[in-house]
Amino acid sequence: MSADPNGLLQQLVDRQQIVDLVHAYCRNVDLVNAAEVAALFTDDCVVDYGPGLGEPTRGSAQLEDRLARGLPRFAATSHHVSNIDITFDTTPDGPDAADGVTYLYAWHRFPDHPATPDAHLWGQYHDRFVRTAAGWRIATRTLRVAGQEAFDVAWYPIGRRSG
Amino acid sequence: MSADPNGLLQQLVDRQQIVDLVHAYCRNVDLVNAAEVAALFTDDCVVDYGPGLGEPTRGSAQLEDRLARGLPRFAATSHHVSNIDITFDTTPDGPDAADGVTYLYAWHRFPDHPATPDAHLWGQYHDRFVRTAAGWRIATRTLRVAGQEAFDVAWYPIGRRSG
Amino acid sequence: MSADPNGLLQQLVDRQQIVDLVHAYCRNVDLVNAAEVAALFTDDCVVDYGPGLGEPTRGSAQLEDRLARGLPRFAATSHHVSNIDITFDTTPDGPDAADGVTYLYAWHRFPDHPATPDAHLWGQYHDRFVRTAAGWRIATRTLRVAGQEAFDVAWYPIGRRSG
Repeated sequence: MSADPNGLLQQLVDRQQIVDLVHAYCRNVDLVNAAEVAALFTDDCVVDYGPGLGEPTRGSAQLEDRLARGLPRFAATSHHVSNIDITFDTTPDGPDAADGVTYLYAWHRFPDHPATPDAHLWGQYHDRFVRTAAGWRIATRTLRVAGQEAFDVAWYPIGRRSG
Repeated sequence: MSADPNGLLQQLVDRQQIVDLVHAYCRNVDLVNAAEVAALFTDDCVVDYGPGLGEPTRGSAQLEDRLARGLPRFAATSHHVSNIDITFDTTPDGPDAADGVTYLYAWHRFPDHPATPDAHLWGQYHDRFVRTAAGWRIATRTLRVAGQEAFDVAWYPIGRRSG
Repeated sequence: MSADPNGLLQQLVDRQQIVDLVHAYCRNVDLVNAAEVAALFTDDCVVDYGPGLGEPTRGSAQLEDRLARGLPRFAATSHHVSNIDITFDTTPDGPDAADGVTYLYAWHRFPDHPATPDAHLWGQYHDRFVRTAAGWRIATRTLRVAGQEAFDVAWYPIGRRSG
């Protein structure tokens, strides 16, 4: 007899592992650990930070390279995530993939502070998670932005109704 | 034999459903989906955003109407919730109701930005959740505010000791 | 037969209790409930808010005294925590201790606002949690800071690579 006949416990465990993945992204970005960030993604991941920040990054090796070059341009960052909403695929064998939307409030300081003001971003990560042999990984990530302050490049919108 | 003799698993599942409800409120508010927000509340809900914002809203139909008129007055919003604290009622048959306190950091941009500065709110939702036939719903919500920037209307205080 | 042969459910319950502890800290700090904050810590706790704020506090009685004197110096605060990352000790008998890193975005208003501008802190609590007879408690807490605005005292850094 199974102790979890409906898979409820397994789904809670999977959810926690995905949440931990989302947190690990933030923490390693803020520490400028490019290799540790890249290891959270599938080998063939696609990461799109928005039209103002160039073409989407394809593959975790390219992502590591991009982050290793890009993150040191800040003097400091802090990525605060919340509102983590995870929807598992419904399959007969249980979930091996999930979609997620996570709210992000990110603070950025530049090396020439205070000449360049701190940049603030209020956005959302739209993610696809997959279970691999090594655990859950981020397969695709797209950043959508509700608004910014002192960070005025072109972003993907969150899809707000115009009223 | 039950796989969850003490109801611990069921309470974790209930908690996740309530957390998802709190997240769905934020996301649909930020998308200006007034009908989707109203559907998260009981038919006879009471929602009180504070004394500076008029009488409490009574019923989900009135809430939808209010949000459909009010939300488009912003150009953009982002509602970041965290510190979600849920206390289930203790009953012999398991929990069908719960109280919650959720921290809110909300960012608002106005159509005439930057003439009108962005408004920031650091507050708390004080909620009553009930289990209905259709799932968990918000029965009552009161917004309490620790502080604001450029959003100076009368709010309910959080109840800080004066020292 | 156990309904939780691998201890997965128990660990999720433990995790929720620790998360509730982290939230209770914030809520009681913001309410200036010094005794309620101190009760979340072990009797022999060590709390270190950073080199610019004096020697580490030793013991919950000293912590209560410090908070009772220090918190009223603000007119209002709001401590928003997220990215709560908990790692349980691995032991044969199940977890009785855990390490945690929690992101903090804290907003502070001073009594002479707006003469003194609001202070913002983007930081991390680095915690050690232990299970006591009365439940989970915080045994050690160190605040590390990614950045601040209008709050320029000496903090412990988060350990960012210099690039």
